[in-house]
Amino acid sequence: MTSPATPPSRREGLRAVALGGGHGLYNTLTALRYLTRDVTAVVTVADDGGSSGRLRHELGRIPPGDLRMALAALLSAPAALTELAETDPEAARRRARWAQVLQHRLGGSGALAGHPVGNLLLSGVDEFDGDMVEALDSLVDLFGIDGRVLPMATEPLVIEADVTGLEEDPRMSRVIRGQVAVATTPGVVRRVRLTPAAPAACPQSLAAIAQADIVTLGPGSWFSSVIPHVLVPEQLAALRETTARKVLFVNLAAEPGETAGYSMERHLHVLAAHAGGLQIDDVVVDADSVPAGREREHLERAAAAFGARLHSCDLALDGRDVHDAVKSALTLEQLLSM
Amino acid sequence: MTSPATPPSRREGLRAVALGGGHGLYNTLTALRYLTRDVTAVVTVADDGGSSGRLRHELGRIPPGDLRMALAALLSAPAALTELAETDPEAARRRARWAQVLQHRLGGSGALAGHPVGNLLLSGVDEFDGDMVEALDSLVDLFGIDGRVLPMATEPLVIEADVTGLEEDPRMSRVIRGQVAVATTPGVVRRVRLTPAAPAACPQSLAAIAQADIVTLGPGSWFSSVIPHVLVPEQLAALRETTARKVLFVNLAAEPGETAGYSMERHLHVLAAHAGGLQIDDVVVDADSVPAGREREHLERAAAAFGARLHSCDLALDGRDVHDAVKSALTLEQLLSM
Repeated sequence: MTSPATPPSRREGLRAVALGGGHGLYNTLTALRYLTRDVTAVVTVADDGGSSGRLRHELGRIPPGDLRMALAALLSAPAALTELAETDPEAARRRARWAQVLQHRLGGSGALAGHPVGNLLLSGVDEFDGDMVEALDSLVDLFGIDGRVLPMATEPLVIEADVTGLEEDPRMSRVIRGQVAVATTPGVVRRVRLTPAAPAACPQSLAAIAQADIVTLGPGSWFSSVIPHVLVPEQLAALRETTARKVLFVNLAAEPGETAGYSMERHLHVLAAHAGGLQIDDVVVDADSVPAGREREHLERAAAAFGARLHSCDLALDGRDVHDAVKSALTLEQLLSM
Repeated sequence: MTSPATPPSRREGLRAVALGGGHGLYNTLTALRYLTRDVTAVVTVADDGGSSGRLRHELGRIPPGDLRMALAALLSAPAALTELAETDPEAARRRARWAQVLQHRLGGSGALAGHPVGNLLLSGVDEFDGDMVEALDSLVDLFGIDGRVLPMATEPLVIEADVTGLEEDPRMSRVIRGQVAVATTPGVVRRVRLTPAAPAACPQSLAAIAQADIVTLGPGSWFSSVIPHVLVPEQLAALRETTARKVLFVNLAAEPGETAGYSMERHLHVLAAHAGGLQIDDVVVDADSVPAGREREHLERAAAAFGARLHSCDLALDGRDVHDAVKSALTLEQLLSM
């Protein structure tokens, strides 16, 4: 469908919202920046591992890691994007350096080892302000970022999953708690929930979804970064009500742990099972990951359950199992032209 | 000599350098900002206590605390200064908020408790850049600070003191190591040294001193923040060679610990004993701290040993033992008019 030979072009005034977390969201944000300056990230806040887990445990506030990564995505400047941005290249270079600083993990072997600088900064500003949205907005202002980064909810969340395959009896289900535990379970994740069960959404995120022209969901860790976005009742309602074009990026491959052995089709089924009838406009899968024949028909039917058209596109970065941001951008551009 | 009723006025183009550390330097930097935008802080880097000590120990790099405080001084905006600055008041308000964020100490009871946000940020950027001057310059750029903050030396230093009064025999001297130990010793500090003994100065600091119109030293912890500035051989040479007006602010009172029981006069004698014949233009003391009569004569003679004139001025903040930045600014303004 797409060819990276033609660079994506700007659509001035396009209001884009990207839902997700982690590396998947980083990629989608980078892709959307090729199309518009008005990009809002809405980010999962259920991480309990690594630096984020330590900060969350220590300070009792929203884990910063996925938010920091979204800030870095909006600060970073791939060469092609810098050319496109028509801004001061020196300012773009400075912002890109700050993206690297925010992502830099402290060394040594002490209490700070492994904390990305941006996690410490974001946690510190959040604690000072007592409000993560205010903290994020002030960092966006400080770094001169186009766009906005918002949390999915105003409090830290816990992911809980029903997992089978951990007992002798394959039908026996156990409850696994915490993002790291769910993401790495050797069992089969059947269903996930949030604790608290119906967390308050972030009002600014709801407003961004309502005003958007395009909303993307995925790619990313399916149970811990993607599905949580439809588990916040007010956010699910906002997704139902928005007139924005809704685009789902399906992962290029199953992930070890939470989606081991999952087909593309099963990714869609399990999202549908959590999304309470949410309609989506476009489901985008990688052409190379989708075999022809019966499996493709199954996949089209699974997309149709969302009321969505299936788009099979060239998306992989150098033949790897991750999305290429330019290819994602070209795909989005073509979808918007339909 | 001075009356705070008349606000200090700007001297555009004045190049000012303030040597010191901690709260004393914070005050002098604030004072100098009333007179000019071109203020360079040259900061001691021998702290080994609290957050700075923990970071220094953990990361093996220059302790950030005094540098952070100098950044905060250049970011902060006392009301009188904001009026004077003729800049966007909204930008001044934002900078003042960042000053507060940098000074904010993390709460909780974990590994980060007590670290000011600015110490974590500065240490992180320094580790990323591998160079403290580059890190400081990038933060000055990021926050839109007028002026510059530089370290006194390019490596972390250790203060070592000969202290008497710790043994039965009052003539017996012991070596006490570390800024905190020296600052809090119950004995009498006789002499301080740096380890390494002749550290490399910061080239940018030497250049700032060479090009300055005015250089201030003190107030501050006498043995651990003020005297170290004359113990870096290249910096002492730069102070000797500069044509800048050199102004020494003497503390309003002795400090418990390192200068307990010290008279104003003794502050001058002990600095002279470390400063190898350095000439100073003006020695500024608080009028209320200097009794008339013989003691004042002694003090004038001690100032004359530096080739300096003694100025006895109204300097105290609300009758306390700390300098009022506006009063310090008015004093500097009058000195520059002489």
